[in-house]
Amino acid sequence: MRACVIHGRGDLRVTGWRTPTPGPGDAVVEVAYGGICGSDLHYWKHGGVGDFTLREPMVLGHEVVGTVLANDSGAGPAPGTPVAVHPATPCGACPECRAGRANICRDTRYLGSAARLPHVQGGFVQHLVVPAAQLRALPDGLELRPAALAEPLAVALHAVRRAGDVAGRHVLVTGAGPIGCLVVAAARAAGAGAVTVSDLLPAALASATTAGATATVRADDPSAAWPAEVDVAVEASGSPAGLETCLRRVRRGGTVVQLGMLPPGSVPFAGNLLVSREIDLRGAFRFDDEFDDALRLLAATPALEALITDVLPLDRAGDAFRLAADRTRSCKVLLELGSVRLRAS
Amino acid sequence: MRACVIHGRGDLRVTGWRTPTPGPGDAVVEVAYGGICGSDLHYWKHGGVGDFTLREPMVLGHEVVGTVLANDSGAGPAPGTPVAVHPATPCGACPECRAGRANICRDTRYLGSAARLPHVQGGFVQHLVVPAAQLRALPDGLELRPAALAEPLAVALHAVRRAGDVAGRHVLVTGAGPIGCLVVAAARAAGAGAVTVSDLLPAALASATTAGATATVRADDPSAAWPAEVDVAVEASGSPAGLETCLRRVRRGGTVVQLGMLPPGSVPFAGNLLVSREIDLRGAFRFDDEFDDALRLLAATPALEALITDVLPLDRAGDAFRLAADRTRSCKVLLELGSVRLRAS
Amino acid sequence: MRACVIHGRGDLRVTGWRTPTPGPGDAVVEVAYGGICGSDLHYWKHGGVGDFTLREPMVLGHEVVGTVLANDSGAGPAPGTPVAVHPATPCGACPECRAGRANICRDTRYLGSAARLPHVQGGFVQHLVVPAAQLRALPDGLELRPAALAEPLAVALHAVRRAGDVAGRHVLVTGAGPIGCLVVAAARAAGAGAVTVSDLLPAALASATTAGATATVRADDPSAAWPAEVDVAVEASGSPAGLETCLRRVRRGGTVVQLGMLPPGSVPFAGNLLVSREIDLRGAFRFDDEFDDALRLLAATPALEALITDVLPLDRAGDAFRLAADRTRSCKVLLELGSVRLRAS
Amino acid sequence: MRACVIHGRGDLRVTGWRTPTPGPGDAVVEVAYGGICGSDLHYWKHGGVGDFTLREPMVLGHEVVGTVLANDSGAGPAPGTPVAVHPATPCGACPECRAGRANICRDTRYLGSAARLPHVQGGFVQHLVVPAAQLRALPDGLELRPAALAEPLAVALHAVRRAGDVAGRHVLVTGAGPIGCLVVAAARAAGAGAVTVSDLLPAALASATTAGATATVRADDPSAAWPAEVDVAVEASGSPAGLETCLRRVRRGGTVVQLGMLPPGSVPFAGNLLVSREIDLRGAFRFDDEFDDALRLLAATPALEALITDVLPLDRAGDAFRLAADRTRSCKVLLELGSVRLRAS
Repeated sequence: MRACVIHGRGDLRVTGWRTPTPGPGDAVVEVAYGGICGSDLHYWKHGGVGDFTLREPMVLGHEVVGTVLANDSGAGPAPGTPVAVHPATPCGACPECRAGRANICRDTRYLGSAARLPHVQGGFVQHLVVPAAQLRALPDGLELRPAALAEPLAVALHAVRRAGDVAGRHVLVTGAGPIGCLVVAAARAAGAGAVTVSDLLPAALASATTAGATATVRADDPSAAWPAEVDVAVEASGSPAGLETCLRRVRRGGTVVQLGMLPPGSVPFAGNLLVSREIDLRGAFRFDDEFDDALRLLAATPALEALITDVLPLDRAGDAFRLAADRTRSCKVLLELGSVRLRAS
Repeated sequence: MRACVIHGRGDLRVTGWRTPTPGPGDAVVEVAYGGICGSDLHYWKHGGVGDFTLREPMVLGHEVVGTVLANDSGAGPAPGTPVAVHPATPCGACPECRAGRANICRDTRYLGSAARLPHVQGGFVQHLVVPAAQLRALPDGLELRPAALAEPLAVALHAVRRAGDVAGRHVLVTGAGPIGCLVVAAARAAGAGAVTVSDLLPAALASATTAGATATVRADDPSAAWPAEVDVAVEASGSPAGLETCLRRVRRGGTVVQLGMLPPGSVPFAGNLLVSREIDLRGAFRFDDEFDDALRLLAATPALEALITDVLPLDRAGDAFRLAADRTRSCKVLLELGSVRLRAS
Repeated sequence: MRACVIHGRGDLRVTGWRTPTPGPGDAVVEVAYGGICGSDLHYWKHGGVGDFTLREPMVLGHEVVGTVLANDSGAGPAPGTPVAVHPATPCGACPECRAGRANICRDTRYLGSAARLPHVQGGFVQHLVVPAAQLRALPDGLELRPAALAEPLAVALHAVRRAGDVAGRHVLVTGAGPIGCLVVAAARAAGAGAVTVSDLLPAALASATTAGATATVRADDPSAAWPAEVDVAVEASGSPAGLETCLRRVRRGGTVVQLGMLPPGSVPFAGNLLVSREIDLRGAFRFDDEFDDALRLLAATPALEALITDVLPLDRAGDAFRLAADRTRSCKVLLELGSVRLRAS
Repeated sequence: MRACVIHGRGDLRVTGWRTPTPGPGDAVVEVAYGGICGSDLHYWKHGGVGDFTLREPMVLGHEVVGTVLANDSGAGPAPGTPVAVHPATPCGACPECRAGRANICRDTRYLGSAARLPHVQGGFVQHLVVPAAQLRALPDGLELRPAALAEPLAVALHAVRRAGDVAGRHVLVTGAGPIGCLVVAAARAAGAGAVTVSDLLPAALASATTAGATATVRADDPSAAWPAEVDVAVEASGSPAGLETCLRRVRRGGTVVQLGMLPPGSVPFAGNLLVSREIDLRGAFRFDDEFDDALRLLAATPALEALITDVLPLDRAGDAFRLAADRTRSCKVLLELGSVRLRAS
């Protein structure tokens, strides 16, 4: 079969790839779509993400949906079922797993991640072998294509959960990329009274409005009308400037959730504000059972599909990555894995 | 009367100062001792603290104890009562006050602080005029001298409260100055299972042991035995290096409380760790009713008085400040305000 | 008359403005064009630039050309002469002036700068009163419009001079805004053997090619072909990332000129490289007699006029500033001051 | 024989070590003294220095003097000659060597450095095998013990040379460790009119006075009398705070030499000052023929020997490193290598 494989910084290839033999408990999914995530772009641009550096070729992709092709595991969805793939297999044994925080399991396996060696191969393949326990049948009314948003939406739902109760509150989201937009949707679903989004790009802010933002702000517009203060801020740009904005805009005693992955090493930080305004700054990392919530929310909110701006076939993966990296032209970009098979037949 | 007044960077003077006329609700306290705090040292060294810059001469001091000299307010302790002075008068009307977080009141009056203009004059005076509602009669068995630790201990108790439940937990404290040592005492009082303290100075670590630390670590000793990980870390050094240590040493999903005031502007920050380990970083600022808890804890813990290493008379304020700034030679340094009166009579 | 006046962050106005009375030695220039500079944009976006904060309304503009309207000073160009205005009047008496470095005069007057109070009013006016000694008659063959590039080109020439002898050397320029492009031209004029330019924006790199770059690099393209090392780097983006690129790309013992104004306060800096590779990092600030060189070079290099992408009338100053701030759409943007007069008559 | 070997962070051992077989051109030196350098301390404290990480056990030490034991190379000093060892063997072929800047040779061999793999073993051994070309006979009147300062003094001389002509100038040195003190001596030897030194520690400032400082300043004393401005600053503390001081204190158009090795990665940097005051910031790294100048200067300046505060035998290397790391108690600490032999016989 064919797969989208990263070999190093700037070296992305669509090549033949051996389908692994399913083990006990595994199912095989015929992948339909895979969303390109910021971390996929990081592997491509920098040869790594955060502290994880590529040490061998790795299939990218962890936002994957498709149809069950085989499942002899004795559990989980039957062949023919459209499914979304939960990308994480936590160990279940470490202190974090036992404390109910599987999202920060210290020994998890995550699709398409170089955190372990050998790397865990990802989902930008035609046939994906995964533990059947990771499969989720799509809820009624949810098609495969919008279901590809389940993984990033789960990330967003988790971040909003980390913020505590946002019902009736004013939430600021810095960064209107796909994740920031989905945070908007998650905050609205959690009852936020107002959601203001800031970004540098008008196109991104338009996507945020699609996702339900009640106000948008161009971060570099000196005459922009910011809210006087917000109760909660979710930093979704992964930039020190976004974090600074959150710390300056949140009210005294407010909560900031850092969701965007900041650059490795030290970044500038207005720690003085955190102390004197007694702010809570909470990291948010991946998700656990929010994946199931995400599928339900997608089924209930058809408008979110509009965040998928482009779908390109696997053999145009290079173009797809360049497009996904250009926020002036795209929001969420999907690879269509099934398309390759059809044209090959 | 005489007072210890800061006129600008490096310009500390012991000079005559007019006793203000008590207003309705005010009492007059004959000040016995005043503790020199890190923020007093900051005003002296830098002409300001955080974003607050000296704009007029200001009496320093907010860790003050003494004896009520007059109280016509109709409430509060009677003349002759030994008291500690709660340094904050929150506004009671702002959103923070109404939400029960008076410590971050946006319009508070705090003794010896340049946050407002005119500045709120501080307590390094012989006769202090304050609202009677700020006075706390000392509990039985607590003398004036150890009671001077009530204010910094209240800060420490608040920081530990911000950390959540620490019972049975391993707590790391970075920085073994007076505040760090009192955080140790506060954590022990809250039931912490182990309290490890790090600092660069052996003398400071000895004070931490006095305060109840179960282990101490020289931060610059390459062969030091750090705990594998801690549940909670309280950063009490006010240094980016201390924050880095906390973020690296706390377990995944753990909590770091930033108590030390970080330098204004941007400081280096390992934000990447906060995200990928999903750490909670919580600012801690001043205190509210922990002041009363502090008095009770001091009455119950005579050993803490040993953290007061030096008491100098008011007219040696310059020496006292230099001594307090030299952590190789001192822990908490008090000014003795009453001594001046006696010698003057 | 009318002028383009900044009143504070985000508050740019085209309003009536009183023409000052010329003093002895002053001439009056009927302004034709004024280029919008990065510092003008800073005043508009941030209410200040570097450490200089707006404290009163100020006419912006220091890249100014026009025609002499009156000159009773007894020296300098006669009425009717097309001129460029040297924006600086150094004091002539300070140690820097006496040492031949008038560009860093500690008491200079610079058009449209808030460094002094009262601020020095700028050149985006219809009639500009300036010392006649600041006027330079345009050399033969140079029209007013391209002459508006003289000021930024003088900045660029000075930066290249700060780099030392670049003849036959490989020069890297980070940042392809108007200044970066003019550094390319200045480096080529000084005999550089190769000039590589990096930027994030394809449109900016195209301008660099127009200015004479021998190679361009998209800074965020992971497969970009950077030169193995360069002899000299000129940082023209004013970003810490640009400085990092320069320090990493310059050869051991090489020279980096920091021309772009870095953000105030502390910025991240790979100082370790500076030491271990023994790099020279030289600030470059404004210019002195390079202004005359700039006029000559502009007369000799008609192709540079193409860097002026837009000319808008004064009464559309708001649009002009927004356009100049959007590097995807513009390189150098000029205000046409004369146009107002014509339409007003 | 015995040697002082670093095995990793915090793991310093005095163990048996095989004397290598001399090759053609090599001589054997019976080592008398070896000075402990800041980089030796770094290897001990951090397991590396700058970007160089220990990957195998390595003998430390590159400030070495002794007596020639054998020399069959046909050149260089005869057996019995007291010598100092130039620690660098540049390649002679790289662009830097050919350009006369052998100190930044990209392929040099430097005693006791992990820059290469296998690491270049250092000089804290009893018998050192080195190319005879690296040996320098001591000038008349210079004993072995003070000659151990030749290497750090060469570093200092090179840094002052990097500053340009300092004759009659006011030089600021930040950091009064052994290197900073020797910079003082080097600046005085080069004719500096005044040399002001800043440090946090009184003991260190006393050493600076010994070395010839004309004024000293406690960096944390808010009432300290700094010079209004200096012409040249040499940063010898390796701290971002020291660099900030240099940038703030040097005059406009002045020169700052960064000699202290800054922490790897990004450090805070007041780049805005570098630009607006047009400062030259020059890295200084090691030295070349300044080693010979250093020997002559030591012979002419017996007072410098007082910077050697402690001499400990090899088998107390652990104590010696702890002492050298404690700047309140020591300036330059030497290991006495010969002592071991004597006691062993």
